[in-house]
Amino acid sequence: MNLTNPVISVIGAGAVGGYYGARLAQHGRDVHFLLRSEYDAVRRNGWTVRSCDGDFVVPPGRAQAYADVRDMPKSDLVIVTLKTVSNHLYEPLIRPLLKDDTAILTLQNGLGNEDRLAELFGAERVMGGMAFTCINREGPGRIHHIDHGIIRLGEFVGSPGERAKRVAQIFRDSKIKCEVLPDLRLGRWQKLVWNATFNGLGAVADLTTDRLIGTGPGMEVVVALINEVIATAKAVGVTLPANIVQVQIDHTATMGAYRSSMQVDRQTGRPMEIEAILGEPLRVAKRHGVATPILEGLYHAARAVDAALCQGNAGH
Amino acid sequence: MNLTNPVISVIGAGAVGGYYGARLAQHGRDVHFLLRSEYDAVRRNGWTVRSCDGDFVVPPGRAQAYADVRDMPKSDLVIVTLKTVSNHLYEPLIRPLLKDDTAILTLQNGLGNEDRLAELFGAERVMGGMAFTCINREGPGRIHHIDHGIIRLGEFVGSPGERAKRVAQIFRDSKIKCEVLPDLRLGRWQKLVWNATFNGLGAVADLTTDRLIGTGPGMEVVVALINEVIATAKAVGVTLPANIVQVQIDHTATMGAYRSSMQVDRQTGRPMEIEAILGEPLRVAKRHGVATPILEGLYHAARAVDAALCQGNAGH
Repeated sequence: MNLTNPVISVIGAGAVGGYYGARLAQHGRDVHFLLRSEYDAVRRNGWTVRSCDGDFVVPPGRAQAYADVRDMPKSDLVIVTLKTVSNHLYEPLIRPLLKDDTAILTLQNGLGNEDRLAELFGAERVMGGMAFTCINREGPGRIHHIDHGIIRLGEFVGSPGERAKRVAQIFRDSKIKCEVLPDLRLGRWQKLVWNATFNGLGAVADLTTDRLIGTGPGMEVVVALINEVIATAKAVGVTLPANIVQVQIDHTATMGAYRSSMQVDRQTGRPMEIEAILGEPLRVAKRHGVATPILEGLYHAARAVDAALCQGNAGH
Repeated sequence: MNLTNPVISVIGAGAVGGYYGARLAQHGRDVHFLLRSEYDAVRRNGWTVRSCDGDFVVPPGRAQAYADVRDMPKSDLVIVTLKTVSNHLYEPLIRPLLKDDTAILTLQNGLGNEDRLAELFGAERVMGGMAFTCINREGPGRIHHIDHGIIRLGEFVGSPGERAKRVAQIFRDSKIKCEVLPDLRLGRWQKLVWNATFNGLGAVADLTTDRLIGTGPGMEVVVALINEVIATAKAVGVTLPANIVQVQIDHTATMGAYRSSMQVDRQTGRPMEIEAILGEPLRVAKRHGVATPILEGLYHAARAVDAALCQGNAGH
């Protein structure tokens, strides 16, 4: 991996990929964006980012936009920000970018993304990260970075070494907070606790987070669901912190009437990330004989909601 | 029980109680209505029924309206049409009406109503029935009877005998179709198959019946939930017909974009009948070790929805 002037590709640049890619480009990195719905706008106007840390524009000359992966250069680092509903496109969208030592970093939601990338492209290439940020797409090529932004990343196999440190430094050099996780799986499950709970309930019942934690019965189902995820994580050897239930609820209480991404998808008719956020943990629980009735009910109900209300495919 | 000219009380006369009570009064029965929100209107104008079988009015002189049960006469037959969320009021609302041989007929939704009435007032008094009808409340004292109307009733304990026959005849004399069920429990579980499934999913996910059965994943969760109810019924010795899944789905397909009563409650902010329709069968399943994950997930999610969106108490 060329780390002096690495070629960086962002695959599936929606709001998250657009934001981080634009930050890297803003600070002089050589970033190539694979786009679908944003392609015309970014090619014409680059990226326009309204940010809590100061607005900025990445001009078209620095925001190298592509509609076809075959036009893109072989890359040192491939950042995957596809919506997980498009993971079946990993092969055609990522393979053409690979050199011998290309690193693949998925910043996607939920579980199972690294596993699938490892199956296809080799485990040693794969890194994973969680983007803790609040970002909206305002229009083609226009992003609103509302708050936060830290990336926590780690290696899919083994302990993080020189590569992870260097990738983290690339983000930090672009004013993106970044931490290297000694244990990526712990980080994934930790984030999943919130995602499964509030995306699952939010999308199925069409309730914002404040309405879920604002009543006794709402809090009961939230806590029960968190405990199901904790039990599932434990079954695969991941011990979540003892205070995680309270931490997640306290954190959620600061968010106000927040619509989880799957609730937004429901309301806007876009496909929900059900498999990565609910289906994968459910399958893990089943394999290990962990009873997760609420997760199971929500998973099947979410699929019914998605089929009834959401159409098309928002990924690339 | 005086069956020549029985005193009939209807407790909690919303649309269902209002309709059946009005039919009985229309045909000369001595019917007394315990009302809350409808009281002023019925006292002033009686009942106005727009019906697929011909419109009719029950004048105030024949629609004997009460706001307080203590003003009502001791009754031969008490018809209970309270919303089940008000079942905690059985004692104060029914006790004052009882004579030695008063029969209590609950036409309420779901499971557990007869059991609770039997505990309070003695099992031998208790009868149960299912009203298969499509009725809306159009305004105070105004009812729209859209379709159907058959009552299927039976005894809570023992086989139906003379009393069940006579009560059925009272309905039939008032142009209400009525059948006596040899096995009330079978009837209850049979109706619950539809109610738990389409009320549960409809209310939690806010989807009409056509949207639920109109997609593959929707049909999957519908069938899985029906099968959970069938397995639970079986555990208590109730064997539902082999073709019930198909019968229920075919029946639902004729209903179009139907909003189940719990979905209507969700949308209008009225309390949902969660315990009778989802909670009771779930508790039965738990007691008998039947796995009902989808029912369990929906039950807890429904409680969160109800707490977040529904207020007050629609029963008497």
